[in-house]
Amino acid sequence: MAQPRLLPPAENAYPYPLLIKRLLMSGPRYNPDQTIHYANRSHYTYSTLVERIHRLANALTRAGVQPGDTVAVMDWDTPRYLECFFAVPMLGAVLHTVNVRLSPEQIVYTMNHAEDDLVLVHDDFLPLLAGVKDEIRTVKGYIQLTDNDRPADTSLPVLGEYEALLAQAGTEFDFPDFDENSVATTFYTTGTTGNPKGVYFSHRQLVLHTLSMTGALAAYDEMPLLRSSSVYMPVTPMFHVHAWGVPYAATLLGIKQVYPGRYEPERLVELIKTHKVTFSHCVPTIMQMMMATESIKTTDLSNWHVLIGGSALTKGLCEAGAKLGIRLYTGYGMSETCPLLSTTHLQPEDLERPLEQQTDQRVKTGIAVPMVELDIVDPNGRPVPHDGEAKGEVVVRAPWLTQSYFKEPEKGEELWQGGWLHTGDVGSMEPNHTLVIKDRIKDVIKTGGEWLSSLDLENLISQHPAVAAAAVVGIPDEKWGERPYALVVLKPDADASPEDIQAHLQQYVARGDINKWAIPEQIRFVDDIPKTSVGKINKKLIRDQLN
Amino acid sequence: MAQPRLLPPAENAYPYPLLIKRLLMSGPRYNPDQTIHYANRSHYTYSTLVERIHRLANALTRAGVQPGDTVAVMDWDTPRYLECFFAVPMLGAVLHTVNVRLSPEQIVYTMNHAEDDLVLVHDDFLPLLAGVKDEIRTVKGYIQLTDNDRPADTSLPVLGEYEALLAQAGTEFDFPDFDENSVATTFYTTGTTGNPKGVYFSHRQLVLHTLSMTGALAAYDEMPLLRSSSVYMPVTPMFHVHAWGVPYAATLLGIKQVYPGRYEPERLVELIKTHKVTFSHCVPTIMQMMMATESIKTTDLSNWHVLIGGSALTKGLCEAGAKLGIRLYTGYGMSETCPLLSTTHLQPEDLERPLEQQTDQRVKTGIAVPMVELDIVDPNGRPVPHDGEAKGEVVVRAPWLTQSYFKEPEKGEELWQGGWLHTGDVGSMEPNHTLVIKDRIKDVIKTGGEWLSSLDLENLISQHPAVAAAAVVGIPDEKWGERPYALVVLKPDADASPEDIQAHLQQYVARGDINKWAIPEQIRFVDDIPKTSVGKINKKLIRDQLN
Repeated sequence: MAQPRLLPPAENAYPYPLLIKRLLMSGPRYNPDQTIHYANRSHYTYSTLVERIHRLANALTRAGVQPGDTVAVMDWDTPRYLECFFAVPMLGAVLHTVNVRLSPEQIVYTMNHAEDDLVLVHDDFLPLLAGVKDEIRTVKGYIQLTDNDRPADTSLPVLGEYEALLAQAGTEFDFPDFDENSVATTFYTTGTTGNPKGVYFSHRQLVLHTLSMTGALAAYDEMPLLRSSSVYMPVTPMFHVHAWGVPYAATLLGIKQVYPGRYEPERLVELIKTHKVTFSHCVPTIMQMMMATESIKTTDLSNWHVLIGGSALTKGLCEAGAKLGIRLYTGYGMSETCPLLSTTHLQPEDLERPLEQQTDQRVKTGIAVPMVELDIVDPNGRPVPHDGEAKGEVVVRAPWLTQSYFKEPEKGEELWQGGWLHTGDVGSMEPNHTLVIKDRIKDVIKTGGEWLSSLDLENLISQHPAVAAAAVVGIPDEKWGERPYALVVLKPDADASPEDIQAHLQQYVARGDINKWAIPEQIRFVDDIPKTSVGKINKKLIRDQLN
Repeated sequence: MAQPRLLPPAENAYPYPLLIKRLLMSGPRYNPDQTIHYANRSHYTYSTLVERIHRLANALTRAGVQPGDTVAVMDWDTPRYLECFFAVPMLGAVLHTVNVRLSPEQIVYTMNHAEDDLVLVHDDFLPLLAGVKDEIRTVKGYIQLTDNDRPADTSLPVLGEYEALLAQAGTEFDFPDFDENSVATTFYTTGTTGNPKGVYFSHRQLVLHTLSMTGALAAYDEMPLLRSSSVYMPVTPMFHVHAWGVPYAATLLGIKQVYPGRYEPERLVELIKTHKVTFSHCVPTIMQMMMATESIKTTDLSNWHVLIGGSALTKGLCEAGAKLGIRLYTGYGMSETCPLLSTTHLQPEDLERPLEQQTDQRVKTGIAVPMVELDIVDPNGRPVPHDGEAKGEVVVRAPWLTQSYFKEPEKGEELWQGGWLHTGDVGSMEPNHTLVIKDRIKDVIKTGGEWLSSLDLENLISQHPAVAAAAVVGIPDEKWGERPYALVVLKPDADASPEDIQAHLQQYVARGDINKWAIPEQIRFVDDIPKTSVGKINKKLIRDQLN
C-alpha cells in the first residue's frame, strides 16, 4: 500500500512542540497593561502575570519540584490559580487541581493516587488537610495560600507562604522544551459508586483545546464570547476541568479577567456589575442562585453571555434568564473531554427574534465545535440516523480527549470503544447536525427495542398541576425488556392518583409527543426522591431499592 | 535530569492526528447551505463542496493517484482549486500549487523537481505546457479544467475534463488516517538568482496555521476579518502560499467565499459590490490597480477589510485606501512561513480616530499572532533591544514554518540557524512588541558598524519634488565597510543635481529622522531602475553592475 510522503526532520529546524508556555506569549504581547482581577481585592497587569509565573516556577523549583513531579492546588478561583495553570506544567510538572468539594477521605485518596509531591493549599482547607495528614503518603511539603495579612496557623509542615515565596524568587525562569505529549494536568471525576477516577491531559491536548475554543467562541457572531473587548469571569471552579479551559483561551487573547474567589451569589452579581463582565460559564444551580438574588434585579445584564454546562440548560431557566436580559447558551462536554465538544447554534433568523423566543434553540446541546467529530450510535456501535428522532449513545473524537484513567486503564475500557470515546449520554441528532441530549445511557429505558428517555418522561409528569417532582427509572420486564417506573412527589395539599397521571400523559400521546407505550403502568407516590451529593436524582439507588 | 511524565498511549483511544480532513468538518456542519461562488458564473453550497471533494478524490484515484504521489494544479482562483486544497492532501497525496506566472522553463523545472505525477491544468495554460511537454519528465497524465462549454483542443495526453470526471465519480471516499507530519502541499519560491526552491508544509502545520489564524482574525475587535458573517474573496493567488491559508480558515468556519478567477481590477471591484465582500488579502500592486478603476468611486467599501502583504503597505497607499473608506491592515509573512506571522495591531484609542489618521499604525508590520515567537537579532544571533530604534534580522519560531527546501537541504542552511528561521528581513521592535520591517538584510547598508535601511533612504529621496523613483544600494567602502549609492530617476522635464538631493536629505538630518552619515556621497541620475520579474527593484543586478 502506497504511503503519504514523510520527509526527514530538517537538521537545523525547530520542531516546535505544542507546550503550554506557548499560550502565554500573545496575550501579554497584545495587551501588556490589560488587567487580571482578584474579585474587588486586587489586580495586576499581564506583564505582572508573566513575571509572577516566572517567580512561581523559581519558588516551586526551590521547594524541590522537578519535571515529572505532581503539584496539587487547593484554592478558590484566584489569579494565583491561574499562575499555577501555567507555571506548574510549564516547568514540566503535573498540575493536580484538587476538587475541594470532595469528602476529606476522597481528597486523601486522590492525593495519594495522583502521587502529589507538593500541595499549595488555601487557609480555608488547612483544617481539612490537618485532620487527615497522617494518611497523605507522597506529599513532601505544603505552600500556604492566604487572603489575610497573616496566614492561618496550622500543624502541617508548611514551607512558606505563597506571596512571600514569590517575593523572594527570581523573575526569570528558563522554561524547557519537552515532548508535547507530556502530562500537564490531572484531576478526578466522581461517579455514583467507587473511588474517583483520574483523568489527565497533555500539553498538546490543552494547546489544541485552547486554539479551537478561541476560534469557536470568537468567530461566530451568534455567540461572541471570547473577543478582545470581552471581560471574562469563571463561575465554574478552576479545579473542575481547568474552569472549562477558558482561562487558557482568555490569557492567549489578552482579555480582562476577573477571578471571583468563593462563589457567593450576591458577590458574583456585584462583580459582574463592577467589572462589566461580558462572559461567564456556569452550572444551572449556581445560575439559579444568582437569579434569586436581590441585586440581580437592578443589574444591567444585557451584555452578559453565559455558557451553561454541567447539567442541561432547561427551558425554564433559559426563559428566566432571557427575562433578565441574560444571554444563555448551552455548552456540552465532560471531565473526560477537556471539556468543550459542542455549543448552542443559532441561525440569523433565530437572533432576529426577541431573546425570550430563542430558548428552544438555546437549550439544545448544539453543534460540535471545530475539530470535534460527534455522532450517535446504537449499542453495536453502528451509526443511528440523524433525523431528530432516533436515539443513540453520543460518541466523540477530538484532539483533546483523555486517553484513559490514570493508573486504571481497565476503567477506561468502557470509555473508549472502537476508536470513539463513549460519553454515556443518549441523544438524537437533527438533520442540521444539532445534537439534543436526552438522557444518560444508564438511565434510558430500553423497552420493546426502543429507547425511552427518562428525562423526557419526568418533564412531562412534572407538568401535571399536582406534581412537585418526578423520577423515572427502567425496571426489568419479561416481555418488553424494561418498563418505565415513576416515583412522584405531590405538592403539599395536592392530590392525584396513578390514573390521573396516566391520563395526563395520554394527552401527549394524542399530540404525538410520546408513544402510547411510554406511559408507565407503575406510578408510586413518595415523600422524597433520593439525590446524589451534587443534587442529581440518584437513579442507581432507586433501581437498587426496586430490585 | 528529571523528565516530564509521559504516559503510554492508551490501547483503545483514538490518537487524532492533525489532518486536513479535520478542517472540513465544522464549516459544512454550521452552515450546510452557505454558498461558495465562482465569480458571477456559478455557486454551490458547503454540502456540495463536501460531495465534490469526495468525488474529486475518487476521480483522482481512478486517474491513478496514490498516497505519496504529487498532483500539480495550474488554475486561476476557483472553487475547483479549493476542492484540490482539500481532496489532494486528504487522500495522502501532495498538492503542488504551480506558480503560473513563472516562465515556461521555470514551470518545467518545478514540475520535474517536485516529481509531479498528475497535472490539473486550465485551458489557458495548455499552450504553455504543450510547448514544453517533451521536457516534462514525471507526469503521467493531465486533467483539463475549463470555463467553457467545450474544453480547448490540446496535444497533451488528457485523461478527461474535470467536471465530466467528477460527474462520473462516486460521492463517497473513505479518507484515510496517516501521520500528521506527512507532506500536504509544496510550491516554489523564486529569488533573484538560481532555480526556484521548493517549500513544503505538512498536514499538522496547515491545521495549526488554520486554527491560529482563525483565532487571530476573529477575536480582535480591531480587525474583525474572519467571522461567521464575513464574506471572503482572495486577491492573492491560490498558488501562492495557499492564498495565505485563508481558504482553509474560511472553510473551517463555514463562511461565504467568492473565488474571482483571473484578477481583472474592474471585475474584482464588481465582485466586491455584488457579493458584499468584507475580507480580502492583496498585494500593494493589485490594490493600486483596483483603486485606479472607475467603478471603485461608486462602490461602498466601508465594510471591506483588506490584509496587505507581499510588499510593505506604504503610508501613501494606506491613506489612499482610507479616503475610499477601505480598512487596510498589514499582514507579514513569507512563502517559508505558511505564511502568517504578524498583523497590524491597533489600540482602542487608534480606532477612535478617523480612519485617515490611523495609517501610522496600520502600515507597521505589527504584532506576532498567537503561537508565533518573533525576535530581532544581530549578525551573531544575539537579541537586539526592543527600543524601536535598534535594527536586527527578524527571526521566528512557529508551528508552521517550512522545515527545509525540498531535496535541497543545503539551501536551507541559511534559513534555519540556531533553531530560528531567519527571514532575511531587517526590522526594529518597539517596546510594545510591534515589529517594523525596515529592509531586506541583503539590501541593508552596513556602514560604520550601523545598519542603514535602503528603503528608508529611497522613501526620503522620492519625496524630492523632481524625483520619480529612487533605488539605493550599498557599495564597498574601505573606511566604512559600505556606503549608500543612489540611482535616481527624475520626473519628465524636471531637473535636479546630486547636491540638490543631498540638500533635500539634509532637512531630515536636521529633523532627526536620519543621521548625517546616511546621506549618499554618490548619486547618479538614470533613465530607469532595473526591476525583477515581480516588479521589485533588482538590487542584486544594480550592485553587480556597480562592482
